[in-house]
Amino acid sequence: MNFASDNTAPASPAILAALAAVNHGAVASYGADAVTARVRARLASVFEHAVVVHPVATGTAANALALATLVHPYGAVICAEEAHISTDECGAPEFYTGGAKLVTLPSADGKILPQQIDAVMARAGAGGVHHVLPEAVSITQATEWGTVYTAAEVAALGAACRAHGLRLHMDGARFGNAVVQAGCSPAALTWQAGIDVLSFGATKNGALAAEAVIFFDPALAEGFERRRKRAGQLWSKLRYLSAQLDAYLEADLWLANAAHANRMAVALGEGLSAVPGVRVVQKVQANEVFAAMPEPLIARLEAAGGHFYRWIAVPGVSDAVVRLVTAHSTTRDEVAAFLAVAQQAEGVLF
Amino acid sequence: MNFASDNTAPASPAILAALAAVNHGAVASYGADAVTARVRARLASVFEHAVVVHPVATGTAANALALATLVHPYGAVICAEEAHISTDECGAPEFYTGGAKLVTLPSADGKILPQQIDAVMARAGAGGVHHVLPEAVSITQATEWGTVYTAAEVAALGAACRAHGLRLHMDGARFGNAVVQAGCSPAALTWQAGIDVLSFGATKNGALAAEAVIFFDPALAEGFERRRKRAGQLWSKLRYLSAQLDAYLEADLWLANAAHANRMAVALGEGLSAVPGVRVVQKVQANEVFAAMPEPLIARLEAAGGHFYRWIAVPGVSDAVVRLVTAHSTTRDEVAAFLAVAQQAEGVLF
Amino acid sequence: MNFASDNTAPASPAILAALAAVNHGAVASYGADAVTARVRARLASVFEHAVVVHPVATGTAANALALATLVHPYGAVICAEEAHISTDECGAPEFYTGGAKLVTLPSADGKILPQQIDAVMARAGAGGVHHVLPEAVSITQATEWGTVYTAAEVAALGAACRAHGLRLHMDGARFGNAVVQAGCSPAALTWQAGIDVLSFGATKNGALAAEAVIFFDPALAEGFERRRKRAGQLWSKLRYLSAQLDAYLEADLWLANAAHANRMAVALGEGLSAVPGVRVVQKVQANEVFAAMPEPLIARLEAAGGHFYRWIAVPGVSDAVVRLVTAHSTTRDEVAAFLAVAQQAEGVLF
Amino acid sequence: MNFASDNTAPASPAILAALAAVNHGAVASYGADAVTARVRARLASVFEHAVVVHPVATGTAANALALATLVHPYGAVICAEEAHISTDECGAPEFYTGGAKLVTLPSADGKILPQQIDAVMARAGAGGVHHVLPEAVSITQATEWGTVYTAAEVAALGAACRAHGLRLHMDGARFGNAVVQAGCSPAALTWQAGIDVLSFGATKNGALAAEAVIFFDPALAEGFERRRKRAGQLWSKLRYLSAQLDAYLEADLWLANAAHANRMAVALGEGLSAVPGVRVVQKVQANEVFAAMPEPLIARLEAAGGHFYRWIAVPGVSDAVVRLVTAHSTTRDEVAAFLAVAQQAEGVLF
Repeated sequence: MNFASDNTAPASPAILAALAAVNHGAVASYGADAVTARVRARLASVFEHAVVVHPVATGTAANALALATLVHPYGAVICAEEAHISTDECGAPEFYTGGAKLVTLPSADGKILPQQIDAVMARAGAGGVHHVLPEAVSITQATEWGTVYTAAEVAALGAACRAHGLRLHMDGARFGNAVVQAGCSPAALTWQAGIDVLSFGATKNGALAAEAVIFFDPALAEGFERRRKRAGQLWSKLRYLSAQLDAYLEADLWLANAAHANRMAVALGEGLSAVPGVRVVQKVQANEVFAAMPEPLIARLEAAGGHFYRWIAVPGVSDAVVRLVTAHSTTRDEVAAFLAVAQQAEGVLF
Repeated sequence: MNFASDNTAPASPAILAALAAVNHGAVASYGADAVTARVRARLASVFEHAVVVHPVATGTAANALALATLVHPYGAVICAEEAHISTDECGAPEFYTGGAKLVTLPSADGKILPQQIDAVMARAGAGGVHHVLPEAVSITQATEWGTVYTAAEVAALGAACRAHGLRLHMDGARFGNAVVQAGCSPAALTWQAGIDVLSFGATKNGALAAEAVIFFDPALAEGFERRRKRAGQLWSKLRYLSAQLDAYLEADLWLANAAHANRMAVALGEGLSAVPGVRVVQKVQANEVFAAMPEPLIARLEAAGGHFYRWIAVPGVSDAVVRLVTAHSTTRDEVAAFLAVAQQAEGVLF
Repeated sequence: MNFASDNTAPASPAILAALAAVNHGAVASYGADAVTARVRARLASVFEHAVVVHPVATGTAANALALATLVHPYGAVICAEEAHISTDECGAPEFYTGGAKLVTLPSADGKILPQQIDAVMARAGAGGVHHVLPEAVSITQATEWGTVYTAAEVAALGAACRAHGLRLHMDGARFGNAVVQAGCSPAALTWQAGIDVLSFGATKNGALAAEAVIFFDPALAEGFERRRKRAGQLWSKLRYLSAQLDAYLEADLWLANAAHANRMAVALGEGLSAVPGVRVVQKVQANEVFAAMPEPLIARLEAAGGHFYRWIAVPGVSDAVVRLVTAHSTTRDEVAAFLAVAQQAEGVLF
Repeated sequence: MNFASDNTAPASPAILAALAAVNHGAVASYGADAVTARVRARLASVFEHAVVVHPVATGTAANALALATLVHPYGAVICAEEAHISTDECGAPEFYTGGAKLVTLPSADGKILPQQIDAVMARAGAGGVHHVLPEAVSITQATEWGTVYTAAEVAALGAACRAHGLRLHMDGARFGNAVVQAGCSPAALTWQAGIDVLSFGATKNGALAAEAVIFFDPALAEGFERRRKRAGQLWSKLRYLSAQLDAYLEADLWLANAAHANRMAVALGEGLSAVPGVRVVQKVQANEVFAAMPEPLIARLEAAGGHFYRWIAVPGVSDAVVRLVTAHSTTRDEVAAFLAVAQQAEGVLF
């Protein structure tokens, strides 16, 4: 009953097997190998577009390297207040960009809106050289609140970005979960909607440690490889990073994993909604459930072996809010067991 | 016959197996897991000293993060001209330290001398605030020329550092090879000789991608974890990084791998020395052979399927110098085949 | 009728004269001169405390250099949302600190409160290495809203900082105006209240371009001089920077200038308050007046030759808010003329 | 007899007078003033070319800001080993560029050669992403050894830079002295010879603290203003910086000052050359004399009140080398008195 995070989950067996499959013989280092080339080809196919692809090991690295190619040190990145890049990466964007700033926007569900971008840009014009220069927007898909932008929503943001000369980055740490929910093609959710660079996450969805930075415009990737190298993010034995991504894409494992995790989250959310005193406070569109519940119930669930985190309070909700995250490895039994504890608690608690 | 680099080699089977062994169940992320704890305990035992240990995926990250904890942005790191941190990390030390400088020293065999440090410090005193402040020395063990500092040599550098208030870092990308050659304990080669921080390499010696930054003085590690996080070097599923190190240390696999690679290099060096027209230009003390040889021989070896790099010229040697690197996976057959090509070339070439 | 900013004002004649007075003969460069020494002695006397003093040319440099000595690149500085360091220095703190973050707090009048610091620190504890580490607080005195912290208010912040292990910086771009208003000693407003470092401003109050960074604890100044040099903020002919500060302190010119500017602001504020339809929205405690007024009145004042800026809207006030800044060189006639335009407008506008 | 540096000299009276001349009334801040506009027009005229001009207070700031616009953080700047940017700015280029590296070249007289650039670029091609990317060359005019590049020499470097896609920066801290010596137009020495950006120095040649960064291609200046602001190098009362440059250019004061300083250096050099045991080790082409002399003579000169610095040793010269710098304010009497001491010492010392 571990719903603490999708990063507590193990790797998919197929991904582990892929490591063994490439573990023979001398292979050219630093990415000049066949498996890395195959990953590039697979992603071009998945996204139906020419792509520049660079594998890295962590989502923080993917995001920070992507942003460093998009903004100057005197620039700014517009993002949601809850964005992982703003709250959970210990200043990685600031470090990688050389001191650019994040301009954060409030949001009810983790999604930002085109008119918020317009408003920032209207203010930015007035300040001239005294203010940092907004050069990019970063959105998270699925969001930190477990919600998913529709293709139309992304496209509206893309249009706003183009109107203001801003680049658009997508933190896709849970991109697979978003694609499954959106029910449209990866292309529709990204470059067709105006995304310039995507952090394509695999770690939270079945890899050991693997992400890909995907540029849809090769010109934007200039300098990326040297930035990656000097950040210590270029693996010498890159085959072991690429092999993970290769297996992740093979036979759409990434979508199968995400679909399973999403289903488990829906089941968890529906089950909890039926428990008196519990309120699911965000739509369950990916693999996360945010639920307000009374303290005694939280204590019960923890005592029974449930693992999860308390989250930031939701305005207008007095109860504590907990976050429950499912993964490719979450079982129906775990979900059922967790819900059973919650349901049994009802009689005791109320 | 791939002697291009030890990073073209595959991973040791035991290390790959360790990944499978930890691939079950939900495990606390970001290092709060049992295997990471075990790695820490193993390294404390190996070094016979309390240590602060932080795993990262690449040697460049290990070095740059270590140096960033030792020097200010207005500081300087003294190192050999050929040091990997100076020539092959695309400015990673400058990036991670916030712009500190490297002060490079010439050396005939990759080793720097205490009197060179004395000379730098004598000059540094004169310049005051107009000059960067040397705060650390970094040495590579084994060196970029495949030579190995003795414990006494390291201790002499350690004494010079203490005399000048400098910290001493060791880039141990090939530390295992050095320990085998030096024939003394890891402790004797490091903290007992004045090393403050060690980049303990595993990638070149059998891991997929794993290094450990080891602080022998916990006070020096202050801030390291936030630096690692904002560099995107903290794995969420850290068990897969630690498991590699765990298997690497288990039953002294690291020393066995290194000993094998060193023996292969010695065989290669001895064999080449016997070829007329070939001159081994550095002592073969680790897993690298530097050999000057006529261009026609180089062409022959390459045509026969040999992989290796031309290296920088050696003063006083007109022939090209090639670097041949062995690894844990190099076979006696590969070495023999390569030497056979060289020996057969003799009749043809001279 | 130029109330656009105190930086549109000329220099005090005595400060200009001081430049001429030191303009003879060869003088040791980079601060090893008599006038720089005298400035240090004067400031020790003004603050009744041993001080480390380093002159720089701009307030942005003073603030950013001060903060860079107080926080690590992975650190954070807590400040008001309107703080100059956050809104008007184009990312200088981020640049100088190597990417530290500003954590901004809302405030009604430009002043932050100890309990806001407590709240930030309570949240900071939870995040561990995923979050930047708050290491300092920066307050502006007088504030960006023209208000002044009392000595007791500063002391309460100082106590909160000590309780949380935070350093306390004061952006004193208008420190003279604050001292005059507070009616207490410079010591009482600074080190006696817990201030660790002060950006002591002179430019806005009569200098051409001169500020002093003042450390009340010499240990905190470590590395400052090299940071200043590498920032290109160390003047070779430092006598011309120090001479400005020397004249600024001589015979309390700084307090006389500030007192005059404050009186002019009070006169302006009182006069405007008497105009129907105008509302002064912040206490006038230094040399700034923030007044909400109808657009037609703004147009009238501008047409009559008044210079001033529109400021950010004030919650609950529908009229535009303008900022009017007085200086040491503002005359009673200018104030009277401006008020006359406003008063005459009354009949026309309403 | 102060020959320690041209930065120990006072300001030209005309420059000081210019400060007084602009010291009246409210003037738009941050450069939107008439005197700044006039400086721009003057420099366009002096250089016979459209220019983008940004005043700053120090040469280190001018150089570092210029270089930061020319190279990426993963880039490199090629320069002479003795270059001020490499040896005397405490890492300012590294700080401002975000960690780019300097690639230094040996030189006998402070000048670098096109073939040295070719050699660096030949090596750079091999390393790929493991090495920083050379993107600019910086030369000092006059050099740190008091020599002057001819227009043809600069043009040859310019051609090499264009051939390799490198930008060419000139550190003109002593540009006036070079123009006087070269006997050609400022245009011929700069943009006509391939210079992209010039640090146009005034501080060492009569200003209090004033330099101008001059871009000959407006496109290269993109972002400069925000970089200057966030570096704390944008004066609010910019009129006082621009007024210095205005007076410096008025009636060619800059050339008159430089011509005088150069003449004084020639007189000093010729006089010293006639002293037995003294050897002038570099051509005297600007305002610096480098002379090898016996220690007892050095002691005599210092005892008689001479101020100067010992310089780095010159290969093949066993005597100490001293540097003597003249300025616009150096008098014939000072030179004569100094030479008299040297000549009188002859009888005593030999």
